[in-house]
Amino acid sequence: MEYRIEKDTMGEVKVPADKYWGAQTERSRNNFKIGAAGSMPLEVVYGFAYLKKAAAFTNHELGVLTVEKRDLIAQVCDEILTGKHDDQFPLVIWQTGSGTQSNMNVNEVVANRAHEIAGKKIGEGEKTIQPNDDVNKSQSSNDTFPTGMHIAGYKKIVETTIPGVKQLRDTLKKKAEDFKDVVKIGRTHLMDATPLTLGQEFSGYVSQLDHGLKALENTLPHLAELALGGTAVGTGLNTPKGYDVLVAKYIAQFTGLPFITADNKFEALAAHDAIVESHGALKQLAVSLNKIANDIRLMASGPRSGIGELIIPANEPGSSIMPGKVNPTQCEALTMVCAQVMGNDVAITIGGTQGHYELNVFKPLMAANLLQSAQLIGDACVSFEENCAVGIEPNHTTIKKLLNNSLMLVTALNTKIGYYKAAEIANTAHENGTTLKEEAINLGYVTAEEYDAWVKPEDMVGSLK
Amino acid sequence: MEYRIEKDTMGEVKVPADKYWGAQTERSRNNFKIGAAGSMPLEVVYGFAYLKKAAAFTNHELGVLTVEKRDLIAQVCDEILTGKHDDQFPLVIWQTGSGTQSNMNVNEVVANRAHEIAGKKIGEGEKTIQPNDDVNKSQSSNDTFPTGMHIAGYKKIVETTIPGVKQLRDTLKKKAEDFKDVVKIGRTHLMDATPLTLGQEFSGYVSQLDHGLKALENTLPHLAELALGGTAVGTGLNTPKGYDVLVAKYIAQFTGLPFITADNKFEALAAHDAIVESHGALKQLAVSLNKIANDIRLMASGPRSGIGELIIPANEPGSSIMPGKVNPTQCEALTMVCAQVMGNDVAITIGGTQGHYELNVFKPLMAANLLQSAQLIGDACVSFEENCAVGIEPNHTTIKKLLNNSLMLVTALNTKIGYYKAAEIANTAHENGTTLKEEAINLGYVTAEEYDAWVKPEDMVGSLK
Amino acid sequence: MEYRIEKDTMGEVKVPADKYWGAQTERSRNNFKIGAAGSMPLEVVYGFAYLKKAAAFTNHELGVLTVEKRDLIAQVCDEILTGKHDDQFPLVIWQTGSGTQSNMNVNEVVANRAHEIAGKKIGEGEKTIQPNDDVNKSQSSNDTFPTGMHIAGYKKIVETTIPGVKQLRDTLKKKAEDFKDVVKIGRTHLMDATPLTLGQEFSGYVSQLDHGLKALENTLPHLAELALGGTAVGTGLNTPKGYDVLVAKYIAQFTGLPFITADNKFEALAAHDAIVESHGALKQLAVSLNKIANDIRLMASGPRSGIGELIIPANEPGSSIMPGKVNPTQCEALTMVCAQVMGNDVAITIGGTQGHYELNVFKPLMAANLLQSAQLIGDACVSFEENCAVGIEPNHTTIKKLLNNSLMLVTALNTKIGYYKAAEIANTAHENGTTLKEEAINLGYVTAEEYDAWVKPEDMVGSLK
Amino acid sequence: MEYRIEKDTMGEVKVPADKYWGAQTERSRNNFKIGAAGSMPLEVVYGFAYLKKAAAFTNHELGVLTVEKRDLIAQVCDEILTGKHDDQFPLVIWQTGSGTQSNMNVNEVVANRAHEIAGKKIGEGEKTIQPNDDVNKSQSSNDTFPTGMHIAGYKKIVETTIPGVKQLRDTLKKKAEDFKDVVKIGRTHLMDATPLTLGQEFSGYVSQLDHGLKALENTLPHLAELALGGTAVGTGLNTPKGYDVLVAKYIAQFTGLPFITADNKFEALAAHDAIVESHGALKQLAVSLNKIANDIRLMASGPRSGIGELIIPANEPGSSIMPGKVNPTQCEALTMVCAQVMGNDVAITIGGTQGHYELNVFKPLMAANLLQSAQLIGDACVSFEENCAVGIEPNHTTIKKLLNNSLMLVTALNTKIGYYKAAEIANTAHENGTTLKEEAINLGYVTAEEYDAWVKPEDMVGSLK
Repeated sequence: MEYRIEKDTMGEVKVPADKYWGAQTERSRNNFKIGAAGSMPLEVVYGFAYLKKAAAFTNHELGVLTVEKRDLIAQVCDEILTGKHDDQFPLVIWQTGSGTQSNMNVNEVVANRAHEIAGKKIGEGEKTIQPNDDVNKSQSSNDTFPTGMHIAGYKKIVETTIPGVKQLRDTLKKKAEDFKDVVKIGRTHLMDATPLTLGQEFSGYVSQLDHGLKALENTLPHLAELALGGTAVGTGLNTPKGYDVLVAKYIAQFTGLPFITADNKFEALAAHDAIVESHGALKQLAVSLNKIANDIRLMASGPRSGIGELIIPANEPGSSIMPGKVNPTQCEALTMVCAQVMGNDVAITIGGTQGHYELNVFKPLMAANLLQSAQLIGDACVSFEENCAVGIEPNHTTIKKLLNNSLMLVTALNTKIGYYKAAEIANTAHENGTTLKEEAINLGYVTAEEYDAWVKPEDMVGSLK
Repeated sequence: MEYRIEKDTMGEVKVPADKYWGAQTERSRNNFKIGAAGSMPLEVVYGFAYLKKAAAFTNHELGVLTVEKRDLIAQVCDEILTGKHDDQFPLVIWQTGSGTQSNMNVNEVVANRAHEIAGKKIGEGEKTIQPNDDVNKSQSSNDTFPTGMHIAGYKKIVETTIPGVKQLRDTLKKKAEDFKDVVKIGRTHLMDATPLTLGQEFSGYVSQLDHGLKALENTLPHLAELALGGTAVGTGLNTPKGYDVLVAKYIAQFTGLPFITADNKFEALAAHDAIVESHGALKQLAVSLNKIANDIRLMASGPRSGIGELIIPANEPGSSIMPGKVNPTQCEALTMVCAQVMGNDVAITIGGTQGHYELNVFKPLMAANLLQSAQLIGDACVSFEENCAVGIEPNHTTIKKLLNNSLMLVTALNTKIGYYKAAEIANTAHENGTTLKEEAINLGYVTAEEYDAWVKPEDMVGSLK
Repeated sequence: MEYRIEKDTMGEVKVPADKYWGAQTERSRNNFKIGAAGSMPLEVVYGFAYLKKAAAFTNHELGVLTVEKRDLIAQVCDEILTGKHDDQFPLVIWQTGSGTQSNMNVNEVVANRAHEIAGKKIGEGEKTIQPNDDVNKSQSSNDTFPTGMHIAGYKKIVETTIPGVKQLRDTLKKKAEDFKDVVKIGRTHLMDATPLTLGQEFSGYVSQLDHGLKALENTLPHLAELALGGTAVGTGLNTPKGYDVLVAKYIAQFTGLPFITADNKFEALAAHDAIVESHGALKQLAVSLNKIANDIRLMASGPRSGIGELIIPANEPGSSIMPGKVNPTQCEALTMVCAQVMGNDVAITIGGTQGHYELNVFKPLMAANLLQSAQLIGDACVSFEENCAVGIEPNHTTIKKLLNNSLMLVTALNTKIGYYKAAEIANTAHENGTTLKEEAINLGYVTAEEYDAWVKPEDMVGSLK
Repeated sequence: MEYRIEKDTMGEVKVPADKYWGAQTERSRNNFKIGAAGSMPLEVVYGFAYLKKAAAFTNHELGVLTVEKRDLIAQVCDEILTGKHDDQFPLVIWQTGSGTQSNMNVNEVVANRAHEIAGKKIGEGEKTIQPNDDVNKSQSSNDTFPTGMHIAGYKKIVETTIPGVKQLRDTLKKKAEDFKDVVKIGRTHLMDATPLTLGQEFSGYVSQLDHGLKALENTLPHLAELALGGTAVGTGLNTPKGYDVLVAKYIAQFTGLPFITADNKFEALAAHDAIVESHGALKQLAVSLNKIANDIRLMASGPRSGIGELIIPANEPGSSIMPGKVNPTQCEALTMVCAQVMGNDVAITIGGTQGHYELNVFKPLMAANLLQSAQLIGDACVSFEENCAVGIEPNHTTIKKLLNNSLMLVTALNTKIGYYKAAEIANTAHENGTTLKEEAINLGYVTAEEYDAWVKPEDMVGSLK
């Protein structure tokens, strides 16, 4: 491979000749060979691209950067956002906890690519744009990385997570309406209970997701707060007056999202409670989705020796040894995602606790886990919706059979003959393997006519709106 | 011990003669000898007392309970709320996951005590009030237990957690103001960085707690939704029309808190995402408090061989072997509480995922963990505030010495001579063990006058409002 | 209340006159009002009693304590171990993270009670025994608390956890044998699969618990290492030569358990990886028990609209509204315990990470969580065994019906006609609602005789020993 | 793109013409668009390659596969193990929870590549080797996936984790020896305490890692148990007699690792407690490593306003804004890894709890998290060792200054003048800002000669071997 020489304050470094990155990126590649290369999420890099461009515009507007430099920086940032430089960001999550090296990676790529755009050859002549003094002007890793991760996280949540969850929520809502007259046995403690409609059951799922979406949206204002302008320790050292507010305005403009400058920059650098907060809501959604997926696979279990109340789409052969087997694979993928999100929540929680003094140095960990969870939940909801939820149908035959068998219909008699006599009927039928009606009459507590009038499953599901 | 005979649908049970509880409570005592007796939080029992009284009022108003029975039930509930019957609730958390047995414990105690109030002897004659048919009228364990735990959790959060956190927040706010002119060295990566004021540092803590309180308050509307009226599976079977709305109104009236009936009773029984949501916010507060307590103990470390920037109150001898030692014990208690809350969050998360069909049967676990976390955070904040935060004082001598030693003041020169030359000055001073000023002049980058004019710590802390 | 005056190095404190504790205990009571009083587990106190007695014997044997003092200390320790002084230990978990105050609580109680035994009145005259100089001789909180928690944890695991798990394991083993000929449908992905015996299913549970017990036992050697002798920072300052080895020998003798002195005292004070390790094994057992309890409640679900393959004991009325309902309450208690243990594992993990320099100051948190988990698992296994497992019976009728219905018996044909044709048979039967045999013959792949000869569930379960 | 048609039991599927995979792989690609493509770890694929080859050898030896088919299968498996087919495995973790689709991916690739090796064109003619009937012979996804993940996990642990941890352990051990005479101040509660040597401090780290390695090795026998031979539900249906033992022998031979057949196949399919167990030990190592990295960065903090007792290598410029800053970046990478591992532990724990009946369907999640943790710990230890630990040096000047300043040297006087008088000396010196010696003499408790003879830091560190 061919190399060129790049320099930083510690000296010279050999860098692959065909890459835009410079000395500090290369040092990080060599010093942090932990896990697969390039694990730092590209979404964070794109977050940096937005903020570097915004910083350039702000610096220019406040008189500390020339229009030429502004435009060169902006042009490279725009290129990065198209994805064409994705292979220029080889660093890993497991680097310095401030993400300094990824900040420098962006600074170096922007500087060298700008040099090239300016018609020069990388590595030759004075750099047209300096990585630290120009691209990083009025910035520090300590405020750029949190800004980049807030941009990345916010975008991921509003562009992937929320639409994905909503897509599933809407389909479940439609199912709740479609199934509103399908009376079925209820189950509590996994045991037969009083009836409800399948639509009511699904309405509970919709309500869970509605609450979860609300909870997630509640966290967005905190995530919309940007650290940029705090620089090294939150005081805003080396930034021109008005910089923090203006740079957030540019970021909001470039992303189309309601970012604002953080009211308190010390919090924004030293703690990442906003990440903890947003991920907490993702974890809540994972809890809800786990319940929903579990219920659906239990109700679809069988086809002959399970519950069998639901029919779910058969998307692939289910077994490499058992012919004809169809499995609730989407439920499985979704619940695995949920378990991952719950694990990620602990990683983020631990990372969040460990800020010291002016800086939390678990930033890349926190960013990566937030982005993974937000992506997985969004994707898994879409996958589950398209490949399972949309095709769920009731198995009316089974539903009716299980409903009519149930001993818990006796509950309808509580208000007529009291809990104790009703229990006696159920227990006797259970012991004798008979029906409730037979035993109710045998025991002399009701007549056949009363039984038929009082024990109607369809009347047992409608007390609430 | 003397016993009397109590009965339920399964037959007779011997119960201690001096206790109000009945057959089902006694069965649970015998069947669930797991951990210490009486571990079911009394707060849940009190939640039940509110709801049983509210149910009695609602049942009467809707024409299904006599005024005499209503008043007897209400009277016992009021007695329970005074704490005088605390020893009547011997059950453990680790019982049936619906909390049925604790619901029955309350029903039985209310019934037997009401019998006594009505002038009769427990165990003799027909019960004046029936545990199931009267005290539990229009109810099921499945809607009462979640209602009881929402009442208990909501009260605990607004009466203990929030006031406790606010008390600490207000003191930290006052400290932030008191310390607004104390310029000190900043630290990032635990390493010396550019200066800020001690007040700015504390303002970050205040901001963390403000965000945490907001996050916690965001969860309260979900927690204010009550399951009561859903009965066994969420359909409201065996409740009179209008019951759910009215019973929530009574609960709101009796507790003085804004409870409402849950819009969707299926969600309210089958999932406890509201507990997951509220506890998620408690966990976020734990993350914030951990950061704050850690910072304070680091800054107070010493007295001679640590950082020593803060002086914290000496509340007790610190060591049984090292004379004269003073330790940051309040920080330690608080961070242990934080770790417990983070653990409890996982317990609640797991419990939350595992609802099946119409019922989540991890209710007592979820209630107990929420209540413990809410109590511990509230108490620990008060303890920390009273015994540590309020007495925190800067050690001005040390702060000044550490500030003036620092090589990172060189950052002030970035905008004057560029990042590279500034770095050279810092590196040289570091190697030679000299001061920045000496080397800045030696290297010929600035004059002594320029240095003094440009490198002023107090000017490096004020770029932001 | 009446008080007396006690003193420590910080001055005078008013203490309840009828209590043995002294100044430092009282300070802690006042300074740490966090959660319920007395939450520090008594098991830790008893651990202290063993070690204080052992230290007295060792100190005497090594010539630094008189025989009179040794015997007085030992006598009080023996009294503490009978439980008669349980109300003398009012401190909470949430105190100093070294547990210094609980160490001093024991020192003070021993000293004052010894004074009384020596025929004097507490608070009057020179103390016969000094809390620091005698009871705490050759000790520090920093080595006594870890020693106390290792003693407490080890005892709890070998006296409660392991016997409880074994009791359940043995009953499941017996069931596995009893059920070895009960052929039933297997289920994978919750869907019908090829058959196995109920005994095989239960043998899997036994294997899980056997592996879990082995894993737990693997952790005991680390837990058997005692910190005592390390004193303040692990160097053993102020201990006579040979003290550490000898004191461990005495502790081993007094407890009857194989305690030894830790090879490295710095690890034993600064880290509590032994607690992390043992609790990790408890968490593994929780994972196993959760699986077992879940399976059993799924198989026992019904009675008419669930799986219904198992009959479990009916221990209590299951519902306050649905008469005659029987629920898998022991499974619920057990799985709630499992969730708690998984949460506790995170609390312990976090506590374990946060040792700084020579001391981990999350000791009481770690001790309390270990003890809770060890107790709950032991108790819950016993409860589950006695009230559920021992009474589990197969529902032969249902098991046979579900087995014979199953389409997955077709797998037996794979080796005869190939996977694809077998799949075709199963799919056709599924679509037509017919039997495998009908369609196998219809499709012309086998004759009736071949089918009967090849598809025998009882022949499908026995390929392995 | 060009396509060819592949078929499975559900019909035809269009597959990219240049890929070896078949219908089921393609279905999975389309049905599970969750997260990045190809996230299923290649290590699992390689595990499959070992086991498919071993199965082919076993099937041949037991008379159910021709030697030609055996050799074709083995040849492709060997190719896969060279890495040349890495791009043939495009599936994600978030698929069916049994990993069936990845099993089929391997089966299909082996079959099509074998067809090609046999001189034919993929997609033309009868397949030389059938994916299900040949490659998957005597297997099921349900026993192959757990086998593949045990092989992958075991290899990763013994080839990456353990060597990585040992490399760090050995360097720390060397440092412990190098620093054995460097007497320094000890710190407990972050506060000054009695002295120890830097070597003693490092010996604690070594002891932690030794215990952690032991704990990890204790888990290997469980991980060495292979499910293969259990087939669909653990009964070994459709395997020739002796298959399970023999196939494990071949796997042991091909991998050079001590794999054996699982004693109980039902456990091996339905539960993955072995993964829980091994990951529990990884988590314990993470706890230890976190402590070590934290200590080192605290002791290296400064350079001028921190503790400054250690000098760590300066590997890269530490700040994009603060010139000359050097940060403990390796500590940060390592502690982020630790946090991830702790999060992964919860994901694995949750996955482990959720097996139902005969199959745990969280297999890919559990495998992926185990492999990530094992890789990250191994890599991070090597990175930390090479870039930090090996270069750690004491800052003797600072160490001496901090030692001699300390008030805790007074502890040496406990055994001479008693705890109370010693405390008085320390408190007085603390208040007056004087030295211990001055106050000891002033207070009249010791003479200057006695002080010098009794208070020698170097004599305070050596009571233990």
